Amino acid sequence: MVMDGLGDRAVKQLHWKTPLQAAVRPNLNWFAEHGSSGIVDIIGPGIRPGSDTSHLSILGYDPYKVYTGRGPIEAAGTGLVGKKGDVAFRCNFATVDDNMVVTDRRAGRIKEPDTTELVRPFDGMVIDGIKVVVKEATEHRAVLLLSGPGLSAKVSDADPHGSTKVHEVIPLEPEAKKTAKIVNAFVKKSYSLLNDHPVNLRRASEKQPVANILLPRGAGMFPEIVPFEEKWDMTGSCVAGVSLIKGIGRICGLDIVEVPGATGGLDTDMIAKAKASLQQLESRDFVLMNIKAADIAAHDGDAAKKVAVIERLDDMAGFLHATLPEDVVVAFVADHCTPIEMQDHSGDPVPLTIYCPGMVRDTGATFDEAAASQGGLGRIRGKDIMPILYDKAGRSEKFGA
Amino acid sequence: MVMDGLGDRAVKQLHWKTPLQAAVRPNLNWFAEHGSSGIVDIIGPGIRPGSDTSHLSILGYDPYKVYTGRGPIEAAGTGLVGKKGDVAFRCNFATVDDNMVVTDRRAGRIKEPDTTELVRPFDGMVIDGIKVVVKEATEHRAVLLLSGPGLSAKVSDADPHGSTKVHEVIPLEPEAKKTAKIVNAFVKKSYSLLNDHPVNLRRASEKQPVANILLPRGAGMFPEIVPFEEKWDMTGSCVAGVSLIKGIGRICGLDIVEVPGATGGLDTDMIAKAKASLQQLESRDFVLMNIKAADIAAHDGDAAKKVAVIERLDDMAGFLHATLPEDVVVAFVADHCTPIEMQDHSGDPVPLTIYCPGMVRDTGATFDEAAASQGGLGRIRGKDIMPILYDKAGRSEKFGA
Repeated sequence: MVMDGLGDRAVKQLHWKTPLQAAVRPNLNWFAEHGSSGIVDIIGPGIRPGSDTSHLSILGYDPYKVYTGRGPIEAAGTGLVGKKGDVAFRCNFATVDDNMVVTDRRAGRIKEPDTTELVRPFDGMVIDGIKVVVKEATEHRAVLLLSGPGLSAKVSDADPHGSTKVHEVIPLEPEAKKTAKIVNAFVKKSYSLLNDHPVNLRRASEKQPVANILLPRGAGMFPEIVPFEEKWDMTGSCVAGVSLIKGIGRICGLDIVEVPGATGGLDTDMIAKAKASLQQLESRDFVLMNIKAADIAAHDGDAAKKVAVIERLDDMAGFLHATLPEDVVVAFVADHCTPIEMQDHSGDPVPLTIYCPGMVRDTGATFDEAAASQGGLGRIRGKDIMPILYDKAGRSEKFGA
Repeated sequence: MVMDGLGDRAVKQLHWKTPLQAAVRPNLNWFAEHGSSGIVDIIGPGIRPGSDTSHLSILGYDPYKVYTGRGPIEAAGTGLVGKKGDVAFRCNFATVDDNMVVTDRRAGRIKEPDTTELVRPFDGMVIDGIKVVVKEATEHRAVLLLSGPGLSAKVSDADPHGSTKVHEVIPLEPEAKKTAKIVNAFVKKSYSLLNDHPVNLRRASEKQPVANILLPRGAGMFPEIVPFEEKWDMTGSCVAGVSLIKGIGRICGLDIVEVPGATGGLDTDMIAKAKASLQQLESRDFVLMNIKAADIAAHDGDAAKKVAVIERLDDMAGFLHATLPEDVVVAFVADHCTPIEMQDHSGDPVPLTIYCPGMVRDTGATFDEAAASQGGLGRIRGKDIMPILYDKAGRSEKFGA
């Protein structure tokens, strides 16, 4: 149970409590009291994790070995999982003028169903023998997947990240010349396919910015990842609202569960996700559940909102307490801290509570950053979480006699 | 001072205390109060250690590098230490009928002095240029050591582990053909040497199962281990009752001390072992002491028995408290947890207390799993124990200036 961005620092307006400490949280406290707590350096002390690298680490993968950039994760989030050696990019649908100068980097925050229509002309595209697949993502976003031999992810972005001319993609290593050439060709083709597309003609007539180009950025080569089931000899599912976490789940071979009401936003239906997770456990050995809301409130710098989200997370924990089967091992953890004051991820350790029957009772009776640091689990690493859960679940094999 | 299998989980019948928490333990508590405590992942978080791999780790060896299977450890336990490249097997004296079908896998739990007689005909045996040594072990067990060039441990077991025909040993890699041939020849020879052996003729006349074959299993190649004295620049002894721990000690080059009354069982004379350990320290720098009893009670799933064993361990700790010379650094630790409910080793961290004059007093005044997790040593690894003791003993060299 990953409560995204949950951890925080002492906040002045909360009388130097953390949002977690300030929240009324009887159910999270119950798990802390009856379980064991600790603090976790998800990647390493002082290392600021992304939500992608952190989830890889929590699933027992070494992000330094398997994380190759955002592109493949975003692509997987939309359902596009490439083979090792394929290269994926994040893209924006954008608006350019006749001189290829970007006038709106998000094409008026265009979204489905327009984007769904706009990716159709790319069906079956091949450039220089390389298969090109485009898929729409959230709002104005899309992903580009290049499949074939001899690709490299060491290329610059076409996206100028501002209102200037579309950048020419530059190879950042000699072996990337072919890829850069293909991406440049792709960008030009996207303009020719999109500029007069019926959707854009309609948008122009409605005085909406046209989405007449696709701007790739954040190239990443698909890594070779041992599937979760092979790595842990467990079947697993992923219950998440946001595309990035679904991407991580999909790349690791978890089954992605679509839960009605799981929006990935502040309005997400947390209880529906908890219910779906318990249901998954009827046929699966493991569930990764992610709730994004606390992170969103923290990125907004809104302490009161983060406290309110945590109280809803606590209600969800209460639902789990009431319904959790006896043979389930549950871990409550954050993927990283998102301090209100920083409005971004920090490298602080995150609180963790593990609960199952028979846990040695440590002294902690509350769930928060400070109490967790006094807990019986001590200070561990993100990569230690899975082996501990695996052992608590009675699945680990003895090494030696 | 390794208290085998001491650590545990919260046990319902002990009102959710661990056996250690439930035991009256004033002396272990004294050491915790006057020393520093911590929890130890003997091999790694969530990793379930065997008693062999755990003791290797405690002695500062990396079990992933030096542990090659049970055979060499058992062989060393009987006193047979091979060179690197030699292959050792565990064996059972068993009973087979004329068709080589196993009728009693333990030959009526035959033991010394019968087994001592039965290994004599193997003296000086050589097969295909490979030296063959057989030595009796506890009860119906024996070990087989093959010495010479070109051996491999990648061979299957002759022991069918049931009442079926003796298995032909199969090479599990091409390089193992020679070894498999030798073991098959050895098994046949053992039948021809044992079937009409006077001991068996006597047993047959007494209606006892004859031990007319030796069934090798669990092949392991002797590893190259830097002797303890070379590794740590300390002389060392091993005071243990069970063969497996003696084997670890012997493989690491520790002197094995035979203590009258040290049975390796529940009835072992703990005070005698403590006395012997102190006596060793008069001429040795280091003693590894192991008491198996708590592990035995836990494998039996008997919480009350485990509590009673711990209270006897505490008496032993009291004896040490009263007699320990001032310049001795003592560590009380478990090699792994053996939770009553599991009746087997778990991957939970174990409690550790280190005592010597001048220890920083941490907050802990009791010795148990939860108190140790609050201790001043934090959460460390098994391989960290020796360097810490080494430094506390004033032996470590400065790194830098």
